[in-house]
Amino acid sequence: MRQQMQLAVGPSSSSSRSSSASDGFPLGPIIINTPECGSESSAGRQKREVRAAEHTTPPGVSRMRSIVSFYLCYLLSLCLGLACVVCVCLWNSRWRGGFAWDGSGLQFNWHPVLMVTGLVVLYGNGAMLYRVPLTWGQNKLPWKLLHATVMLLALVLSIVGLCAVFDFHNTKSIPNLYSLHSWIGIAATALFATQWVLGMAAFLLPCSPLPLRQLLKPVHVWMGGSILWLSIAACISGINEKLFFVLSGTQPYANLPPEAWLGNSLGVLIVAFGLVVLMILSNSKWQRPDSRPEDLAYTPLLQEENE
Amino acid sequence: MRQQMQLAVGPSSSSSRSSSASDGFPLGPIIINTPECGSESSAGRQKREVRAAEHTTPPGVSRMRSIVSFYLCYLLSLCLGLACVVCVCLWNSRWRGGFAWDGSGLQFNWHPVLMVTGLVVLYGNGAMLYRVPLTWGQNKLPWKLLHATVMLLALVLSIVGLCAVFDFHNTKSIPNLYSLHSWIGIAATALFATQWVLGMAAFLLPCSPLPLRQLLKPVHVWMGGSILWLSIAACISGINEKLFFVLSGTQPYANLPPEAWLGNSLGVLIVAFGLVVLMILSNSKWQRPDSRPEDLAYTPLLQEENE
Repeated sequence: MRQQMQLAVGPSSSSSRSSSASDGFPLGPIIINTPECGSESSAGRQKREVRAAEHTTPPGVSRMRSIVSFYLCYLLSLCLGLACVVCVCLWNSRWRGGFAWDGSGLQFNWHPVLMVTGLVVLYGNGAMLYRVPLTWGQNKLPWKLLHATVMLLALVLSIVGLCAVFDFHNTKSIPNLYSLHSWIGIAATALFATQWVLGMAAFLLPCSPLPLRQLLKPVHVWMGGSILWLSIAACISGINEKLFFVLSGTQPYANLPPEAWLGNSLGVLIVAFGLVVLMILSNSKWQRPDSRPEDLAYTPLLQEENE
Repeated sequence: MRQQMQLAVGPSSSSSRSSSASDGFPLGPIIINTPECGSESSAGRQKREVRAAEHTTPPGVSRMRSIVSFYLCYLLSLCLGLACVVCVCLWNSRWRGGFAWDGSGLQFNWHPVLMVTGLVVLYGNGAMLYRVPLTWGQNKLPWKLLHATVMLLALVLSIVGLCAVFDFHNTKSIPNLYSLHSWIGIAATALFATQWVLGMAAFLLPCSPLPLRQLLKPVHVWMGGSILWLSIAACISGINEKLFFVLSGTQPYANLPPEAWLGNSLGVLIVAFGLVVLMILSNSKWQRPDSRPEDLAYTPLLQEENE
C-alpha cells in the first residue's frame, strides 16, 4: 500500500511498467508514460493525474468492473460457440443429407460436426473454465477435475470425428492424410491427446514430481492456446475444401449459393469464437487468483497444487 | 528485496503467484504450490527449497540465461521464416511456371509468394522487433520507426499480393471474394491495415491524446497476435485449395506427388514459424523493460511514449 502511494505521487521519472503484451484488454486503469507534445512537465502532470485518478477508484468497484467485463466476454463466447454448433449441424443435416455410420457420405457428415463441437467449442469452453470468477472462492480440485473431464469429452468427440472420416475414406478407397488440412488437423488432435495425458499425469495424479510440474505448467498453458488456433486453422481449411468439393455444376461455390453462405458464415463464427476465447485466456487480470488462502485449505486424495 | 526474502523464508501458507498463462515459457525459476503425496509439511519444505534455490541464483546468470534462450528461439524463427520464403518461391517458380504480371496464372503465382512473405514472415519479424535485447539499452524511437517501417513494407507486399489475385480473377472472369479462404485473408489484411493506421496515429504522431493511447495499447498488442494467426489460417486454407486445384489427372493430390509434399511442407513450416513467433510474443520475460531511465532521456520530434 505504501509502495502504491509512492507510485501515485512520485516524480515523473519514476516509471512504472505499462500493461504488458500478455495483459490483453486490461480492465483496471493503464499507466503509459506518454509525454504530451513538446512539454515534459505537462506529460508528467498528465501521468500523475492518471495515477491519482486510478488510486481514487475503490478496489471493489475496479474488481466489479473486471468481473462484469469478463462475464460479458464469456457470454459472447458461449453465444458464438452455440452458433458454431447450430451452424455446423444445420449445414450437415439440411444441406448434406443428415447422418449415418455406414461408410457413406452421411458418415463423413459426422466429421465436421464432431470436430467443430469437440476440438473447437468444447475445447475452448474447457480452457476458459478456470477464468470464471464463480469458481474462485471454492477449492480448485473439483474444477480441475471438471476441466479434465470436459477436455476428455472434447478429445473423445474429436477422435470419433477422425474415425468417421477415416472409415469413410477406407470404404471409398480414398487415401488418408494426404491434404494439408488433414496434416494440420491430425497434428492438432495428436497435440491435444499428448496435452491431456501429460496434464493428467502432472497435475492430477498424486506423487507427480515437482520438477515435472514446474516444467509442464507453462508449456501446458501455452500449448493449450496453440492447439486452439491450430484446430481453427484446420477447420477453416476443411470447410473451404468441402465447399469446393460439393458446390459445382449449376450451383458453383463462386456464385455463393445459400450453402456457401452458411459454410463461410460457420468459418467466420469459428474465428470469432477463437478470438474471444484467446482474448479471455490471454488477459492476466482474468486469471484465477491462486494466492487466496482458501485455495490451500482443502487437500483431498488428489493433492491440490497451485496451478 | 525485503519482500522477496519474506517470500523465500515464509511459511507454506504464504503463497506466491505462479507463472501465469501469459508467461509462455518462463526463463527464471517457477514457483508452483505442489504439495507432495499426503504430506503437507513435505510439500511446504519442498516449496521453501525451490524458493531458496531461486534466490541463490545470481540475477546476472538468470538474465544471461533469459537472453541466450531468447536468441535461440529468435534464431529458430528466422530460420523458419527464411525456409517459408524459400519454399513458397521454389514452389511457384519451379512447379507453377514462374512469375509475370499479365493476368495469366503466372501473375497469380505472386499471390502466395507475397502473402507468405508479407503477411506472415515480415509481419512476424516486425512484431518481434521490440523483444530483441540488443535494442533495449537504446532509445526506443528509432526501433519504433523501424517497427512501423517493417510493418508498412509487410502491408504493401500483402496489398500487392491481393492485387495480383484480383487482377488474375478479373482477367479470367472469376468472381472475387467468394471462398472462405478469401474471406479470412481479406479480413486479416483489412485488420492489419487498420492496425497500422491506428498504431501510427496513436503511437508515432505527436499530440495523440493520452486516452487514445491508453485505449489502443492493449488492443494493438492483442490484435497484433490475432492478425498473425488469422493470416496463418488464411495461408493454410489457400495452400490446401491451390493444391486441390492444380493436382489432378495422373498426379492427383491424394498420391502425394513431390509438389504436394512441397506445398504441405510449406504449410507445416508456416505453422511452426507462427508457433515460435507467438511463443516469443507471449513470454512476458522477453518484453522490453520500459522502466529503464535511458528510455525516457531522449524525446525527439515525435515524442517518446512508454509503449
